[in-house]
Amino acid sequence: MTSPRIRYAMVGGGRGAFIGAVHRIAARIDDRFELVAGALSSNPENAKSSAADLHIAADRAYTSYEEMIRAEKARPDGARVVVIVTPNHMHFPVAKAALQAGMDVICDKPVTRTLEEALELEALVKSSGCFFGLTHNYSGYPLVRHARELMAQGKLGKLRVVQVEYPQEWLTQPAGDDNKQASWRTDPARSGLAGCLGDIGTHAFQLARFITNEPVASVCADLASFVEGRQVDDNVHVLLRFANGAKGMLWSSQVAPGNENGLRIRVYGDKAGIEWAQENPNELWFCELNKPRQLITRRGDWLSGVPGQGVRTPGGHPEGYLEGFANLYKDFADILQARAEGKSHELQAWVPDIHTGVEGMRFINAVLTSSAADGAWTALS
Amino acid sequence: MTSPRIRYAMVGGGRGAFIGAVHRIAARIDDRFELVAGALSSNPENAKSSAADLHIAADRAYTSYEEMIRAEKARPDGARVVVIVTPNHMHFPVAKAALQAGMDVICDKPVTRTLEEALELEALVKSSGCFFGLTHNYSGYPLVRHARELMAQGKLGKLRVVQVEYPQEWLTQPAGDDNKQASWRTDPARSGLAGCLGDIGTHAFQLARFITNEPVASVCADLASFVEGRQVDDNVHVLLRFANGAKGMLWSSQVAPGNENGLRIRVYGDKAGIEWAQENPNELWFCELNKPRQLITRRGDWLSGVPGQGVRTPGGHPEGYLEGFANLYKDFADILQARAEGKSHELQAWVPDIHTGVEGMRFINAVLTSSAADGAWTALS
Amino acid sequence: MTSPRIRYAMVGGGRGAFIGAVHRIAARIDDRFELVAGALSSNPENAKSSAADLHIAADRAYTSYEEMIRAEKARPDGARVVVIVTPNHMHFPVAKAALQAGMDVICDKPVTRTLEEALELEALVKSSGCFFGLTHNYSGYPLVRHARELMAQGKLGKLRVVQVEYPQEWLTQPAGDDNKQASWRTDPARSGLAGCLGDIGTHAFQLARFITNEPVASVCADLASFVEGRQVDDNVHVLLRFANGAKGMLWSSQVAPGNENGLRIRVYGDKAGIEWAQENPNELWFCELNKPRQLITRRGDWLSGVPGQGVRTPGGHPEGYLEGFANLYKDFADILQARAEGKSHELQAWVPDIHTGVEGMRFINAVLTSSAADGAWTALS
Amino acid sequence: MTSPRIRYAMVGGGRGAFIGAVHRIAARIDDRFELVAGALSSNPENAKSSAADLHIAADRAYTSYEEMIRAEKARPDGARVVVIVTPNHMHFPVAKAALQAGMDVICDKPVTRTLEEALELEALVKSSGCFFGLTHNYSGYPLVRHARELMAQGKLGKLRVVQVEYPQEWLTQPAGDDNKQASWRTDPARSGLAGCLGDIGTHAFQLARFITNEPVASVCADLASFVEGRQVDDNVHVLLRFANGAKGMLWSSQVAPGNENGLRIRVYGDKAGIEWAQENPNELWFCELNKPRQLITRRGDWLSGVPGQGVRTPGGHPEGYLEGFANLYKDFADILQARAEGKSHELQAWVPDIHTGVEGMRFINAVLTSSAADGAWTALS
Repeated sequence: MTSPRIRYAMVGGGRGAFIGAVHRIAARIDDRFELVAGALSSNPENAKSSAADLHIAADRAYTSYEEMIRAEKARPDGARVVVIVTPNHMHFPVAKAALQAGMDVICDKPVTRTLEEALELEALVKSSGCFFGLTHNYSGYPLVRHARELMAQGKLGKLRVVQVEYPQEWLTQPAGDDNKQASWRTDPARSGLAGCLGDIGTHAFQLARFITNEPVASVCADLASFVEGRQVDDNVHVLLRFANGAKGMLWSSQVAPGNENGLRIRVYGDKAGIEWAQENPNELWFCELNKPRQLITRRGDWLSGVPGQGVRTPGGHPEGYLEGFANLYKDFADILQARAEGKSHELQAWVPDIHTGVEGMRFINAVLTSSAADGAWTALS
Repeated sequence: MTSPRIRYAMVGGGRGAFIGAVHRIAARIDDRFELVAGALSSNPENAKSSAADLHIAADRAYTSYEEMIRAEKARPDGARVVVIVTPNHMHFPVAKAALQAGMDVICDKPVTRTLEEALELEALVKSSGCFFGLTHNYSGYPLVRHARELMAQGKLGKLRVVQVEYPQEWLTQPAGDDNKQASWRTDPARSGLAGCLGDIGTHAFQLARFITNEPVASVCADLASFVEGRQVDDNVHVLLRFANGAKGMLWSSQVAPGNENGLRIRVYGDKAGIEWAQENPNELWFCELNKPRQLITRRGDWLSGVPGQGVRTPGGHPEGYLEGFANLYKDFADILQARAEGKSHELQAWVPDIHTGVEGMRFINAVLTSSAADGAWTALS
Repeated sequence: MTSPRIRYAMVGGGRGAFIGAVHRIAARIDDRFELVAGALSSNPENAKSSAADLHIAADRAYTSYEEMIRAEKARPDGARVVVIVTPNHMHFPVAKAALQAGMDVICDKPVTRTLEEALELEALVKSSGCFFGLTHNYSGYPLVRHARELMAQGKLGKLRVVQVEYPQEWLTQPAGDDNKQASWRTDPARSGLAGCLGDIGTHAFQLARFITNEPVASVCADLASFVEGRQVDDNVHVLLRFANGAKGMLWSSQVAPGNENGLRIRVYGDKAGIEWAQENPNELWFCELNKPRQLITRRGDWLSGVPGQGVRTPGGHPEGYLEGFANLYKDFADILQARAEGKSHELQAWVPDIHTGVEGMRFINAVLTSSAADGAWTALS
Repeated sequence: MTSPRIRYAMVGGGRGAFIGAVHRIAARIDDRFELVAGALSSNPENAKSSAADLHIAADRAYTSYEEMIRAEKARPDGARVVVIVTPNHMHFPVAKAALQAGMDVICDKPVTRTLEEALELEALVKSSGCFFGLTHNYSGYPLVRHARELMAQGKLGKLRVVQVEYPQEWLTQPAGDDNKQASWRTDPARSGLAGCLGDIGTHAFQLARFITNEPVASVCADLASFVEGRQVDDNVHVLLRFANGAKGMLWSSQVAPGNENGLRIRVYGDKAGIEWAQENPNELWFCELNKPRQLITRRGDWLSGVPGQGVRTPGGHPEGYLEGFANLYKDFADILQARAEGKSHELQAWVPDIHTGVEGMRFINAVLTSSAADGAWTALS
């Protein structure tokens, strides 16, 4: 534990941003990282004042990511990891530049705007030998990981049915121009062709994929854009067929009043079912056939192995979104440290990486294709 | 209220049956009906002993429905209504015989095994002028009716998204031959080509149709039969397109461990969303956009009109499945009484009837067709 | 099952009453009783029209209970059981008259206004040999009975702590004169000296007593009357000491906004705890120390013996207040039938009787005494 | 925001401790503090290795708090704040030494073992002019603060009834000697005469006091020690009388199987009631009389003023125990910064301080006195 903190630089995340602050808190919670540099905004003024807010030295408050990468590489005490928290369209160029410079990358999701970009990054990760972590943060929750363990241990039996959903309400009405979060998410140029699908549908997909550890073979989709004038989808209906013959449904929506951040998954095998909902992530239902349902809570004495490592407080002391996110950062730190020592780490199999990102883009593409073809079953390829 | 009780005869529902006992309790709760005759079983011994259990006079314990209809028609104090609670394949012949004899009918769902049979009954109802009530009992719950009122009053705004589901666990494993309820439900000869789809999927469909009062235009379906050797579907995944452009998902399953009778619906408009779940039917979430969610309970002072008429106990005194079912019987009684006086009754618009049954069969047919065509969108026609 | 229905006569319960209608539905649900006579109101007009509503023959629509008892005793087809659903102050004289006439009695709670009256009835029950059932209906719920079984079987270990509560909101403000239910309940002349305490506090007490099967030895109470001008308590705070050394808290209130009928109990032993709430009576939490909580539902395959006998519908088909109430009536019928055959019945140990009523009055007295003595611990004697 | 981080030193919190790590995370989340020194354990070896874990320089890893205070005071870059996370009996001497040295203090609860000690600290805080923050962390939750606002704004009307409880299960059985957390908490020499009462009962008391902003005038208590051989209470039953005439109940227990950390409060006025439970702290029920209950969530757009300042993530992104705790640290930072500039800060009225600690000790004393006097009502004085 006495290894030094890992130095990182952030791209995006200046004043007024949402997810950048989340990454910084997540990195701080377990004190394994140190923010040393940033290109926090494309606006020079904002970049500098945001950096000052964050105790970044003035000479490391860059106004372009290219400059940042060049300068930090040149410093003996330079950042080792680039954290990318920009709007989606900038993920690719920044990640590419970082990897080409031989820097490790932690990137928000979705990995890129297009599958082609994702594949290019995948090749670059391989050729560079750098680390690439993708913050599908919901797989950091201890009970999500425990669900995956229950599945892997055969407690659910053979996988049959998956119901996953992610409804929100915040785009029910047209977003005003003053809503920074909404405006780029509904702009194809910055967000990609997938709206709700890319923003939260991919989280739902990844959660199902993560827990079941079973690939989705094909999809049948019906996208909608309910708000007049909106250029991207705001409601996503998808039927899923898994490689093993299991079937599923995926719903994500940003026009569902009453839902704040309703990511929820149910997985059924021939022996048992489980249910987990993000809004109260400290509880997992485990339901064996014809037995009383059991409510498993996020308790250290009930979780072992990797799932248990993410528990910071005793049962009944709720952990939430930031702690789940922090678990990814803690794992990234363990992996990065192992790599620095020339070792591999078991956690590599638990954290979302560039392959997760590529698979997510294949999912997006297949859904867009299927929906455009009036729901024709479309393989993820 | 001093009108005499309505005399009815029951077909099916002998010892060991489930739904027959439910109908009898539902008919008794408000004391508007009187069971006077029965053809309770095709087994003569069971028919007689079951009748004796139920205080039916020995000479009115028939062993065939044809005989029963003939004899009761001939009596001055004969049954006026035939209640049909047999397995699905007998609904049609019994209903047909009753209607042809000029008797009113109350029939369990699904109305028939095939659309053709349903259409024939529809014509017969029209030509006979008899009453035909279909016991889609979930539309009898006061809060389901209140949900329909909220929709009708524009409180939800324009309908956009419907998520309805009905999971159960009881057929997760192969049903033994000793399971009377399971065996006929998984036998196409007695249940129809639709398994889970006909048994509970139609309830989910009818609930969505009832609350939204919006027709489903077409479906895209993926049926599964997960249990080896099962001849009918046991998991139903359907995408819905409503006539007004709204979209939906319908899931029903009988292989979902942890689910007992999980009928649940969520409806979203551009102003508000609602959520109701059958397992605690005394609560309805009403969620206006960007306002705290409201929990509406089954209280007489909050429900007015038809929804309020189904409330027997004050808020906090839970009503359940039998009371919801009884509301249909109470309404049937009011309608029958009005008809006896040559009047129509506003409740006619609230209770499921032969048209509901026909629409349900169109839904079943469209789902079967779509699933057989690998999910091609198929109109309900 | 072919034994004839038990003939009963009702005192109280005319038009506008609440609990009388509940008793009648409860008696009808399992079809074991037949309402043949009534003194439904002290107002002759109301008595007659109410009787007509209920299909009671005009010559058996009495205007006084004395007359009713006299006349029904004289008929060969006379009522055998008197059901008392009047305001509290009339329970005693009616029950006394019925018992003196040798008629069985089913009486709403609290049994009388005073302990002295209750003791007199207790003696009369003994001397008359008649049956006396008290409708503490909440002990009729299958899961309440299952909780008692779990306790009796040692699944909870040694009893330590009981937390029981019964909050309502309906008397938060002064009750208008037009509120029939409220006016007699807050009038000491008709309701007794105990307000909220007698109306619902006794239910909470009886529930704790029933599940634990452990007597309360003494109480320490603090009553309040928050609404200006109210002559009886509307909030009840009581500390409990059980005979075995366990301790408890009892709270009942009629001035707690947001609570409709919030009866809820938690019982803790040294091995496990349980929790049950009336507003969703189909669920019982069973929590073994350091194990995931189990949600036991009202399923026939999980409940056996007496608790299981009260289950009419499969798990997930919710039963409620009326079904719980009906379970008492079903049990009363079984007991009455056994008595008619000169036998005793195991259910006698499960239904509330005159001793339950006496104990309830001792509880009320002890609470009133303790509260008047500024919380001095007061024995139930 | 560009002010430098506040340097703090920690006493207690070495390897194997629980609450020390919590304080450190809470201090890190908003990046307003910097841990620069520690006397983390009375065991020198543990003190040093624990410090190394935490990136504390070796020469600032002290083995006694006296030495630490002396040395840090002497450094120009010395710690300014002492954070005390030892077992209870050490709170007083450490805090006293720090205050006498003119250092600000952040101290875990309960403030001391005795009222006398607390009063001495109160005088010392006054005379020294130092800051003293007490980490009753549950008052840091945004919705707890919003509840206080609702009360203050008159939304609940006149305060009548408070029901607060804090059950846990973890001491249901005798604690083994190897349970470090349990052993000192059940040892009067280290924990004080109050067991469960001091450990969690004070949290419940403080929560009620904080939300209602109404003093408790007197208590009537019944303590129990159910586990054989235990020297302190493990179950706490208290009746409360508030200064304004309101009444309440407080239950805390460490022998209630099925409860992890069940702090929960309900407050009723004559207009509305509220309910909040710590295990899902992102929801607050607000129940106006005779209106549907409203579920208020931790959303920035619904909370304003001080309550809203503690929100880091949008609604539906759950925050938990650590974030609530961090809110106190954030507030402490704001207050300390204002004090450094010679200003007062509105947050001073929102954070628990030495007076809160004194009042908590008065509560403990009154409860112990009342229980020893068989429940005699005892004033807090």
